[in-house]
Amino acid sequence: MRNILLRVAYDGSAYSGWQEQPNAPSVSEALKAAIYAVTGESSDLAGSGRTDAGVHALGQAASFHTNCAIPAGKLPLALNTKLPRDIRVMSATDVSEGFHARYSAVSKEYLYIIDLSEIQNPLIYSRAWHFGRGLDIGKMQQGAQAIVGSHDFKAFMSVGSNQKTTVRTVLKAEAKQQGSFISLRFSANGFLYNMARIFAGSLASVGSGKLALGAFANSLESGIRLKEAITAPACGLYLASVCYSAEALEI
Amino acid sequence: MRNILLRVAYDGSAYSGWQEQPNAPSVSEALKAAIYAVTGESSDLAGSGRTDAGVHALGQAASFHTNCAIPAGKLPLALNTKLPRDIRVMSATDVSEGFHARYSAVSKEYLYIIDLSEIQNPLIYSRAWHFGRGLDIGKMQQGAQAIVGSHDFKAFMSVGSNQKTTVRTVLKAEAKQQGSFISLRFSANGFLYNMARIFAGSLASVGSGKLALGAFANSLESGIRLKEAITAPACGLYLASVCYSAEALEI
Repeated sequence: MRNILLRVAYDGSAYSGWQEQPNAPSVSEALKAAIYAVTGESSDLAGSGRTDAGVHALGQAASFHTNCAIPAGKLPLALNTKLPRDIRVMSATDVSEGFHARYSAVSKEYLYIIDLSEIQNPLIYSRAWHFGRGLDIGKMQQGAQAIVGSHDFKAFMSVGSNQKTTVRTVLKAEAKQQGSFISLRFSANGFLYNMARIFAGSLASVGSGKLALGAFANSLESGIRLKEAITAPACGLYLASVCYSAEALEI
Repeated sequence: MRNILLRVAYDGSAYSGWQEQPNAPSVSEALKAAIYAVTGESSDLAGSGRTDAGVHALGQAASFHTNCAIPAGKLPLALNTKLPRDIRVMSATDVSEGFHARYSAVSKEYLYIIDLSEIQNPLIYSRAWHFGRGLDIGKMQQGAQAIVGSHDFKAFMSVGSNQKTTVRTVLKAEAKQQGSFISLRFSANGFLYNMARIFAGSLASVGSGKLALGAFANSLESGIRLKEAITAPACGLYLASVCYSAEALEI
């Protein structure tokens, strides 16, 4: 039986998120319907992880087993003709039968966009967090550096998460300004629930001067969530990519 | 009585266009409702011209008379709190009582975006024409140059237009490529119905080799619309700006 890895991009605005929900449209459900339309099979599609309602993806990863004979290179076009225009399969590759989009993942990268402009361009209203005023990019860059490395990130997750450990390793945390936009990039071996959005909200508080760099760094040690460590809106968040080891991708 | 000029940006995806329609939401209607909410007045709001369903604006212009006392500088925020997030008043200025957003306009500029990428990023599906393969930008630039100047553009309008004259002066026509996107800019003293979209469709036919530069230039002389002079999709078109003379803007 074949196992296929899909790289998927989507505009999350119209969806309740990746995960299937009883009474709301989900990205996963739309993909399963497209796979069924193309292969005639009800698939075991598994994503690399959930994305919340309104969160976008440039490179979500998902894998499913199939008996269909369509070459991997032709699957994106075949699936895209069955998908709504706000979801696109960007690539498909054969992987080994044991590969799993979630359990085989080594790291993930998220992108977060903050719009500093006073009046937001309405063409991006569901694509960026409209902050509406300037932020100190230098302080945000220092704050970003503080989260790099292995830490107990329990002060940077939403309640309701159920994790064996809240220790994660952040491989990269960057803040860059381009015109009236700030882009944040976070790469880690795993993300706790809402961690990327709480990183973004905390760094915005650091940049606006509401949260001192010292207090921000201390919360990494204390594990106590600060009131300034707000959860930034879903619309600014993009799952940029999911990384797998070369071995995991071998057939 | 005051006369106010608004500069308005909108994502046209959810609207039947600028103009009010009996059974469909329009940008004009949404703006009039916001003006009513802020001033308590039913306004005589007039746009610089219509935009079709799905066409976007970065700088639509519209004017209305009012007795309200709110300073012009505070009107954008006041109106924006009453508007849906896909419409934004970017600025407001007092103009003379005789000013009219349509009749006082000197020229308009449209932007058209063509996406050459094989698989479209779903985050821009309603923001660009997904052409899906390469175009010869050099030929498109030559084609663009051919339309600059005063011509009878009757071969570049949709049937159903009712115009005294079909002669217009194109002040600027440019084609630029950046990565997998081509942006076209057209500035003219006036646009016939669908003229900007037919320019874009014709230049795409020139760039794909379906339409020879000579035949394209000849249609400017003959006035006979070519079958390759297709109307490019609305989603790629943006009303970029409307120009007024300094005198017209004086109070």
